[in-house]
Amino acid sequence: MLQLFKNHLAKNLSYLKPAKLLLAVSGGLDSVVMAHLCKQAELNFVLAHCNFKLRGKASDQDEDFVKELATSLDVEIYTQGFATTEYAKAEKLSTQVAARDLRYAWFYELLAEHELDYVLTAHHANDSLETMLINLSRGTGLKGLTGIPENNNKIVRPLLPFNRKDLENFAEKNKINWRHDQTNDTDDYFRNRIRHQVVPPLVEENSQLFQTIQKTQANLKQTEDLLEDYTAILFSKLVQNINGEYYINVEQLLETPHTKAVLYQLLNSFGFTEWNDIYNLLHAQTGKQVFSATHRLVRDRAVLILAKKPKEHEKTTFLFKKEDRKLNFSGKLLVKEIIEELGKPQNNLAFLDYDKLDFPLKLRKWQAGDAFCPFGMKGTKKLSDFLKDEKVSPIEKENVWVLMSGEKIVWVINHRIDNRFKVEKDTKKIVKFSLV
Amino acid sequence: MLQLFKNHLAKNLSYLKPAKLLLAVSGGLDSVVMAHLCKQAELNFVLAHCNFKLRGKASDQDEDFVKELATSLDVEIYTQGFATTEYAKAEKLSTQVAARDLRYAWFYELLAEHELDYVLTAHHANDSLETMLINLSRGTGLKGLTGIPENNNKIVRPLLPFNRKDLENFAEKNKINWRHDQTNDTDDYFRNRIRHQVVPPLVEENSQLFQTIQKTQANLKQTEDLLEDYTAILFSKLVQNINGEYYINVEQLLETPHTKAVLYQLLNSFGFTEWNDIYNLLHAQTGKQVFSATHRLVRDRAVLILAKKPKEHEKTTFLFKKEDRKLNFSGKLLVKEIIEELGKPQNNLAFLDYDKLDFPLKLRKWQAGDAFCPFGMKGTKKLSDFLKDEKVSPIEKENVWVLMSGEKIVWVINHRIDNRFKVEKDTKKIVKFSLV
Repeated sequence: MLQLFKNHLAKNLSYLKPAKLLLAVSGGLDSVVMAHLCKQAELNFVLAHCNFKLRGKASDQDEDFVKELATSLDVEIYTQGFATTEYAKAEKLSTQVAARDLRYAWFYELLAEHELDYVLTAHHANDSLETMLINLSRGTGLKGLTGIPENNNKIVRPLLPFNRKDLENFAEKNKINWRHDQTNDTDDYFRNRIRHQVVPPLVEENSQLFQTIQKTQANLKQTEDLLEDYTAILFSKLVQNINGEYYINVEQLLETPHTKAVLYQLLNSFGFTEWNDIYNLLHAQTGKQVFSATHRLVRDRAVLILAKKPKEHEKTTFLFKKEDRKLNFSGKLLVKEIIEELGKPQNNLAFLDYDKLDFPLKLRKWQAGDAFCPFGMKGTKKLSDFLKDEKVSPIEKENVWVLMSGEKIVWVINHRIDNRFKVEKDTKKIVKFSLV
Repeated sequence: MLQLFKNHLAKNLSYLKPAKLLLAVSGGLDSVVMAHLCKQAELNFVLAHCNFKLRGKASDQDEDFVKELATSLDVEIYTQGFATTEYAKAEKLSTQVAARDLRYAWFYELLAEHELDYVLTAHHANDSLETMLINLSRGTGLKGLTGIPENNNKIVRPLLPFNRKDLENFAEKNKINWRHDQTNDTDDYFRNRIRHQVVPPLVEENSQLFQTIQKTQANLKQTEDLLEDYTAILFSKLVQNINGEYYINVEQLLETPHTKAVLYQLLNSFGFTEWNDIYNLLHAQTGKQVFSATHRLVRDRAVLILAKKPKEHEKTTFLFKKEDRKLNFSGKLLVKEIIEELGKPQNNLAFLDYDKLDFPLKLRKWQAGDAFCPFGMKGTKKLSDFLKDEKVSPIEKENVWVLMSGEKIVWVINHRIDNRFKVEKDTKKIVKFSLV
C-alpha cells in the first residue's frame, strides 16, 4: 500500500510534497495509518488532535496515545480540549455537528497561526461510499453523489483511493497500534447501519466495489463540471446583472430547451423551494413574486427580477428639520441647499419654492392612497397610477420614497416634484434637494 | 390508491386515455394490480401473457390464472409459449435475458399486428430503486442513476410512483388474488439481495424513501436533459460531419473548459473504453489512432477524425477485363468508355492511351512500396510520399485504390494518373475511366 500511496501523491497530489501539512489524528485506525504513510512518504507534517471530552477517561487516553505517536514519528503535535457538550447545547447543535464545527474552526486557526498549507484528514473510500448512500437515502442531486471531495478549502483527503480493508492490512503488516474509537459505533446511527448492513451485500456482489464507485464518482464529477460550464453559458446568455439585481429575460428563457431545468439550474443556489410557483411566474402578470429565505423572484413585464429580500424592521419615516443640511436614510443621503438659480433638471434633484414648505418635512415610503399633482401635468393623480405609467418595476416600487410637507407630497424622490411646490416667477428663495 | 393512480394518469400520462393498450401481465402481484387499476380507471386495454415454460406446471397455472383474469375483467388476452431454455442456449444468453428479449419482441409484434399504441408494464418504485442501486454497484454514470424510464420506445410504466407496499395494500383492500411468482425469489440473486438486505435498512432510516428517491431521480433526469442540450451545443461547435465521418477540431477542443470531460461526452456513444489513449491523441502526431469495437478515432494534423472501423475480409483485388464496360468494387463503380476527345480533367476521371494498357487491368488497394510516375512531375515517386505531400488523411489513405497495367500503376484513383499512360499527340484511341 505504501507504494500505491506514493504513486497517488506523485500523480494526483503533487502539491503536497513541498507543502507544510497538518494531519488531523484522532488516534483511530484511519488517521494513525495516514500518519505512518505520510512519514514513510517523507512528507513535511505536524499532528493535530482534538479532545472532545465526550468519553471521559477514554478521550484522555486517546490524547496520550496520539502524543506518543507524535514522539515516535518525531513530529510536532498540537492538542486542544473542547467543551463539546456545552457548545452543542448553547448552539442547539447535535454533538456530532458541534464536534465537527469546533474541529475545523481550530484547524483553520492552526493553519493561519503556524503558516501551514493544508489539513489532511483520513477519509477513505468507505467513508465516501457511505456519504453517497446517505445522501441518496435523504434525497440529493448530482453533487450529493460525487462522494467526499479530495480537496476543498485547504482540506485534503489523500486516502480516498483506499478502503478500510486496505488500511487494516497495512496496520497489521506494519504492526501499527491504534485506538478503537467507540464513537464510530455509537454516534451516527445511520452511517453505521449503512456501514454494517447496506455495504456488505454490495461488496459480496462486486468485490471491486470501491474501485467501481470511485470510477462512477469521477464520472459524475466530470458531468458536474460540464453542467457548471453550461450553467455559466446559460447565465451569461439569459441573465443580466443590473445594480446587483439579476434580470432574467422570460422570452429567451422560454425559447431555451428544458426551460424548467434551466430555471432550476439558474436559481438553485438562492434557496428557493417552491418550484411550481416559480415556473408559474413564466406566465404570470407583473408584480407576482416568490420568496426564498434570502431572496425573491419578481415578475416584471418581460423579465424576472431576482433580488435580495427587503429588510424587515427598517425605519421608514424620517424628519428633515429646518436647520438640517442633510439627512441619512435607508443607505442614501438627501442634501439640502439654498441656491440662486435653477439648475439642470435631473431625477435625483428637486428645485422647490422654499417658502411654500412647511418644516419639518417628513420623508417616508409611499403608501397606497397617496396622490399628488405631478409637475408638468394638470390636476391630481394617484401615485400608484403614476408609478404604473412610469413603468417602475415592482422592486423599485417598494423603494419609492416621498418627501412630505404636512400632508402634501412635495417630491416623489427620483421621479417627479409636485406642482404645488414648484419654483415660479414670484419665488424668492429656491431650495435644492439632491439624492446622493 | 385508485384515486392517486387516476390523478397520475390525468397529470402525467394523459396520452394513455385515448390509446389502445397492451398490458403485460405475468399473474404476479404487480401486473395483476395494474390490470385492476386500469380497468377501474376505464382505460382501453387487452392483456398479454408470456409462458416461458421455466417452472413446469406452475407456468401453465400462471397462464390459466391470467386467462381467468381476462375473463373476469372482460378484456381480450393474447398468450404465447416460449422455448426459453433452448433459445437462451442457442443465443448464449442467461435465461433471464433470453426471457426479456423474447417477451419484448413478442410485445412489439402484438402492437403492430393489432394496432395497439403502447405496452404497459408494472414496474414500480421498488424496481426503480433496485435498478439504481444495481447500476451503482456495477459502475455507472448519470444515466444509470435516473431509474427506470417512465416511457421509452412505446413501453410505458404507469406504476412508477407507487411502491410494493402500496400495491399489496390495494390488493388486500380489494380482495384481489394473484400468483406468487417464484422466479422473483430465485432468478436474479443480486436484485433479491438488494431487495431483501439493502433496501430495508434505508427505509428504516427514511420512511419516505421511495418519494425521496423519485425526487432525486427526477432531479437527475433534469440534469441529464441539460447535459444533452450542452452536448448538442458542443457537438455543433466542435464537430463537423464530412461524408459521414466526424472531424473534431483539436485546438478548439483544447480551448473548451474541461476538455477531457467534453471529449468523453462527444465520443461516449461510440463504444470507446481506452480514454487515456484518446486523451493522448490530443497531443499526438498524425496517424495515431484508437479503436473501439465499432469505431476508430484518428489524429490527422489539426483534427481528430471519428470513423467507422474498416471492414475486415473485404475483397481488395479486382480484374477489369477488356470486354467489360464497368466494374463494381467496394461500394463504388468504375466505368470505361472509348471517347473521341479529351474532356475536362477531374480527380474522378482518367483519360488514358488505350493502346498502352495491358488488359485485364488489375484494381487493388495501394501498398507500401508502390511507386509511380505522377502526371505533371518528372521521374518516379514513392506513392507513400506522394500521398503525404497531397495531405491525404490517414483514413482516406486506407481507401486509396490503384489501377494497374501489369506491374505498373496506371491511375492512383481519385488522385493522379501515371505519365507512362497519358494521352499524347500520337494517341490513336482514348479511353476514359470514371469513378462514380
